[in-house]
Amino acid sequence: METKEDYLPSLITNTPFEGRQLAITLARKSVGAIQPDAEIKKKLRPIYAEDPISLIASAQVIATEFQTIAAANNYWKK
Amino acid sequence: METKEDYLPSLITNTPFEGRQLAITLARKSVGAIQPDAEIKKKLRPIYAEDPISLIASAQVIATEFQTIAAANNYWKK
Amino acid sequence: METKEDYLPSLITNTPFEGRQLAITLARKSVGAIQPDAEIKKKLRPIYAEDPISLIASAQVIATEFQTIAAANNYWKK
Amino acid sequence: METKEDYLPSLITNTPFEGRQLAITLARKSVGAIQPDAEIKKKLRPIYAEDPISLIASAQVIATEFQTIAAANNYWKK
Amino acid sequence: METKEDYLPSLITNTPFEGRQLAITLARKSVGAIQPDAEIKKKLRPIYAEDPISLIASAQVIATEFQTIAAANNYWKK
Amino acid sequence: METKEDYLPSLITNTPFEGRQLAITLARKSVGAIQPDAEIKKKLRPIYAEDPISLIASAQVIATEFQTIAAANNYWKK
Repeated sequence: METKEDYLPSLITNTPFEGRQLAITLARKSVGAIQPDAEIKKKLRPIYAEDPISLIASAQVIATEFQTIAAANNYWKK
Repeated sequence: METKEDYLPSLITNTPFEGRQLAITLARKSVGAIQPDAEIKKKLRPIYAEDPISLIASAQVIATEFQTIAAANNYWKK
Repeated sequence: METKEDYLPSLITNTPFEGRQLAITLARKSVGAIQPDAEIKKKLRPIYAEDPISLIASAQVIATEFQTIAAANNYWKK
Repeated sequence: METKEDYLPSLITNTPFEGRQLAITLARKSVGAIQPDAEIKKKLRPIYAEDPISLIASAQVIATEFQTIAAANNYWKK
Repeated sequence: METKEDYLPSLITNTPFEGRQLAITLARKSVGAIQPDAEIKKKLRPIYAEDPISLIASAQVIATEFQTIAAANNYWKK
Repeated sequence: METKEDYLPSLITNTPFEGRQLAITLARKSVGAIQPDAEIKKKLRPIYAEDPISLIASAQVIATEFQTIAAANNYWKK
């Protein structure tokens, strides 16, 4: 009876670059889980997107999510 | 004689998405362990949910919890 | 001649939930190692327990300690 | 039909130093994913490049990205 | 011709508790590497020891160092 | 045609202590990659070296870099 969108059917991606895109998606979905209001998120976006600390902290989240995704994909080694 | 709710019977989930949900639960339970007062938590919620840095820092906690859950589930590889 | 309390006889716990409790203990003991004065800790507690950033940062410490504990317990897999 | 530049064809590099360069690239690309506007990024650069906290937080992102890259390369062991 | 004190002859400790003590030592030595002036460190100590964010951030460093030490000791499993 | 100094020929060090020194070097080189201006770095140094949060955040970077180096060296186990 789960009605939330399943944004993560799998951690497996075809390429490292797709893994990066997934990491960005996960970071965004986490923010959306805490602040689901689309209007508020829209209002906050220009604030954090022009604040260096917010940008760098976001990059930290992406780096952490990517660690998980990269390990799941065994670093896309052939 | 442990009377606290066991919110973590297992780290194993059926899907990656359920793993994300568990990661969010763990992050919330940690905050509740430090600040158990429901009234105060309710008061703080609109503050951090509209503060970019708080939102991004929360996403960082979720990413870290998810690392553990994903490893526990061997990344849900078949 | 170590006189400090050994608050960590083992990283092994019976359940994931006990692992969470241990993670919280470790986080608290670290703060106590830097600020051992009980009076000051008591004074600081209401401050950080009502500050969203402090709460989230504390949850980050717990998540990190739990990573170690979960790995030590091989994620409590049977 | 992906039109974004694939800045990460592989996590494998010839040397540890090249791995560091890749880690810096990944950190920068994450910031660019959240703030794609070249003008704004240019405006922010002198701000964070002279702010100690921003510099150290950026180094933290690089360290995290490098962890992933180093593991992918099995630490460049012969 | 290294004249600096070797504060880390080994990552191996007899017990998890000794591992915690080592983690605290490593965190302190890092601060000392960046700010070696004993007078300044003494001046800063009461400031960060009464600042919740500084205390929690210090606990985060200790948690991270402990991850490394615990892995090195294979989590002190018999 | 890489003209930048290769400050990381290898992650392998003889001892854990040398590993710590390398971790500090990596943290400093990351800051230098973002802010290469020697004059500005010199100007910032006394600021962050007397700011508790900056010092602790720097220690966090060192701890993270050391995790990678320690794993690369298999924790210097004989």
